[in-house]
Amino acid sequence: MPRISEPTVRRLSQYYRVLREVEAEGRRLVSSHRLGEREGITSAQVRKDLSMFGSFGRRGLGYNVAHLRAEICAILGLDRRWRVAVVGAGHIGSALVAYRGFAELGFDIVAIYDRDPDRIGRRLGELEVEDVGVLPRVAPGTYDMGVIATPLRAAQDVADLLVAAGVRGILNFAPRVLQVPESVTVRTMDMAVEFESLSFELSRDRSRRRRNRDGA
Amino acid sequence: MPRISEPTVRRLSQYYRVLREVEAEGRRLVSSHRLGEREGITSAQVRKDLSMFGSFGRRGLGYNVAHLRAEICAILGLDRRWRVAVVGAGHIGSALVAYRGFAELGFDIVAIYDRDPDRIGRRLGELEVEDVGVLPRVAPGTYDMGVIATPLRAAQDVADLLVAAGVRGILNFAPRVLQVPESVTVRTMDMAVEFESLSFELSRDRSRRRRNRDGA
Repeated sequence: MPRISEPTVRRLSQYYRVLREVEAEGRRLVSSHRLGEREGITSAQVRKDLSMFGSFGRRGLGYNVAHLRAEICAILGLDRRWRVAVVGAGHIGSALVAYRGFAELGFDIVAIYDRDPDRIGRRLGELEVEDVGVLPRVAPGTYDMGVIATPLRAAQDVADLLVAAGVRGILNFAPRVLQVPESVTVRTMDMAVEFESLSFELSRDRSRRRRNRDGA
Repeated sequence: MPRISEPTVRRLSQYYRVLREVEAEGRRLVSSHRLGEREGITSAQVRKDLSMFGSFGRRGLGYNVAHLRAEICAILGLDRRWRVAVVGAGHIGSALVAYRGFAELGFDIVAIYDRDPDRIGRRLGELEVEDVGVLPRVAPGTYDMGVIATPLRAAQDVADLLVAAGVRGILNFAPRVLQVPESVTVRTMDMAVEFESLSFELSRDRSRRRRNRDGA
């Protein structure tokens, strides 16, 4: 299989979501149009993405839902369960523990840590907040992934702890770049960047309108 | 100015972050290397991005920090303040209200709404949770942007309310695509997609290692 780029992986996630819906509707076939329409992905792009790993729809019929779903499931690594530890039992950490959607996809949040004595021992859903001080003593392989939901200043230390605990993937909510070994993958959820992307678009609209008005 | 692509806007956000740090350190000049290094952006890419809107570093000296910061600030629309309304006073909404970093960038969260009677009237920082039922009656232009931090099933209704209230940008935390008029920009923070991007990478590692082992 060729190297799959990150944008392609994100599109596969979207197709997978549509496939789950279509399967729930009891349909056996799905068109490239339906797979892409909600995200505004063209049918041509859908077909290109899917042909890359050898899946071809039948002209005029579409793709076999169950087959394609299983295929994308395997590519995305969703054909197994992942054990996730969250560090930081504040608002974001609590939101993650409360949301059931991740477990449906195979991501089990199995532990939550904090360093605040007021939070340690508190129950969050089925979990009890543990002292982050014990994280260095968990057996390697206990967690596949870690989530950093701490204040900015603690983020790098927590990343180091998670790496030492053997996680190979980190979802980071702190708006900073983390230093990790090359064998560890980090994805950062950066809300500030999203806000700035919005203000960029809104400012562009404004200056475009001003130009149009001045030119009229 | 040429059309700026979304990945470029995201890189500008990163440069802007570095520029604020470098300015806080009291430096007058910054190299393309420093601007890109944390995000792993090459110096060549930095220079290309910055030349696109007419900013050129001086060979061997670098870019003027104050000048470049002001320029990117204006491009990203951060030379003004933005009024943001949050809908959903659960974990995510509370996290947004509690975080001061957005106001530093010019994004003022000025209202938070919910429909749960238990939450309405509760104080969150300096705000009081308001009944989402009054949102249709706010004057157009009261908010520039809206944040959707509600459960999945309410997301589209809330998007409709925000659009009716005149917002032109929406930051969406619900894992679904929203239907909005073309004049409204939506950015979605999709944690499931990020988890899947991690599981993809971790699975790829695993199969690569297996291949290497089998080949050895």
